[in-house]
Amino acid sequence: MTTSTGASRTVWLDGVFLPAAEARVSVDDRGFLFGDGAYEVVRVVRGAMFEAERHLRRLDRTLQGIGIGYGRAMELREVAERLLDENRLREDEATVYVQVTRGAASPRTHHFPPAGTRPTAYASAAPFVPFDALRARGAAVVTVPDIRWARCDLKTVNLLPNTLAKQRAVEAGAAEAVFVRDGIVTEGASSNVWGVVRGVLRTHPMTPAILAGVTREVVLEVARERGLPVEEVPLFLEEVRGLEECFLCSTTLDVMPVVSVDGEPVRGGSPGPVARLLQEGLRERMDTGVLAAPR
Amino acid sequence: MTTSTGASRTVWLDGVFLPAAEARVSVDDRGFLFGDGAYEVVRVVRGAMFEAERHLRRLDRTLQGIGIGYGRAMELREVAERLLDENRLREDEATVYVQVTRGAASPRTHHFPPAGTRPTAYASAAPFVPFDALRARGAAVVTVPDIRWARCDLKTVNLLPNTLAKQRAVEAGAAEAVFVRDGIVTEGASSNVWGVVRGVLRTHPMTPAILAGVTREVVLEVARERGLPVEEVPLFLEEVRGLEECFLCSTTLDVMPVVSVDGEPVRGGSPGPVARLLQEGLRERMDTGVLAAPR
Repeated sequence: MTTSTGASRTVWLDGVFLPAAEARVSVDDRGFLFGDGAYEVVRVVRGAMFEAERHLRRLDRTLQGIGIGYGRAMELREVAERLLDENRLREDEATVYVQVTRGAASPRTHHFPPAGTRPTAYASAAPFVPFDALRARGAAVVTVPDIRWARCDLKTVNLLPNTLAKQRAVEAGAAEAVFVRDGIVTEGASSNVWGVVRGVLRTHPMTPAILAGVTREVVLEVARERGLPVEEVPLFLEEVRGLEECFLCSTTLDVMPVVSVDGEPVRGGSPGPVARLLQEGLRERMDTGVLAAPR
Repeated sequence: MTTSTGASRTVWLDGVFLPAAEARVSVDDRGFLFGDGAYEVVRVVRGAMFEAERHLRRLDRTLQGIGIGYGRAMELREVAERLLDENRLREDEATVYVQVTRGAASPRTHHFPPAGTRPTAYASAAPFVPFDALRARGAAVVTVPDIRWARCDLKTVNLLPNTLAKQRAVEAGAAEAVFVRDGIVTEGASSNVWGVVRGVLRTHPMTPAILAGVTREVVLEVARERGLPVEEVPLFLEEVRGLEECFLCSTTLDVMPVVSVDGEPVRGGSPGPVARLLQEGLRERMDTGVLAAPR
């Protein structure tokens, strides 16, 4: 264990930097009692956060979407910067985690707590090693029924279905669980899903059925920059095994080729050129810190 | 505030009885990070828990359903008994709250933490005043789309949709939000829903779309004991306003007549005799501590 993963790593909770082992929240915190909060994970490359602004804007959108009045999402960037310093994470890769809940209130009520209840804000940073070895050979995925709620566009900590799906993947020796609803591939438990169909890149359109992945957005931009045809149209499960290529993307997976689905090979079991091209484009942006045009 | 609602009330966390103000969980607790846990609320009448065994068995079922290995759900009864003593809750009414999460683990992973990770167990008790005044005049409810996940039979702390629904009710001046999926009334944000249709009691059948309410079971038993015809068949939203009676039931609402839905009166806006009869039967069981036959 390095300093920054062990108990002595420094985290931030409600305005205070403190050792992780001392960072505790009340049992009355609505994060603990209701999963009543929003979160983000931001990638850090050689000490610099990648697309921090898009992540923090999305945090703000989620908080607004669930009615948590926390106007300081963008300020968490400074908190994260200091966590990277405190934990000596400026050299290699890392991730920053931020979470805001509706705060602690007693008595427990399903409805919102009294006005003035202060949201709980938490941030941490940890070293990260990219999944390059897995990327070279490609990932196995399993499909699971998409039993989640109807607002998957909100990045909340109501993550139990994602947890159960990911566990199923792990038990099957797979890297990711891919949700399927009414025969349609929505997204992975913590990633977006892509296919190549007759030379055209395809990924699920931005609806409440999926999260607006930051990496998904960046990959869309990279694809367009490189002149690859793209359509935001859902993939059907029955198409997946016949895809020219299938891949995932996320803040931690980057672009991850999928080489098998439910034990059946995709593309003969080998990663494809489109995934590789997009990974190179994504990685280039990460390495140069190039920000996409504001949207 | 009485002693037992204030900061000096005694709660129980991971085997230790301690003041509520000192009861804190790690920011790495999967309850806080993923809403990865199960809970129960048990009613206490004159110091005695009502149907504690059914509640704790259901806790055990939920824990098994989400793969949390915690074999001690039934032992929480003794914990609750001591909380009632410590907080001097043996005279009036009260509620006991228990929650078990998958425990604290770092690094954060969607999938289950390493074997041996100890679940976090928490329990508290608080005074409770029954909603008798509201019962006398009847409750207003609002309907909301049922956007929850597909496993509402599991009583987990992934409660954000319930929170958002209940808040909508509060903002509309209503006591409860009633979920409607595909035109069918499933259940309330924290209650089950009943109707009387041509003299027959009707409530949603036990499917994964609703929670197996303990009070729902007791009310079913009371109805059958009293010879009321009952069918476990869903109500359609379009039937609701024309119902002879509509009511809710839950651990804290008991049997609660509904007198308006989305601002439109039900039964001319007055509570009905079937709800009253069932409330009397439920209350009798609570007062005498009569346990239903084991199922």
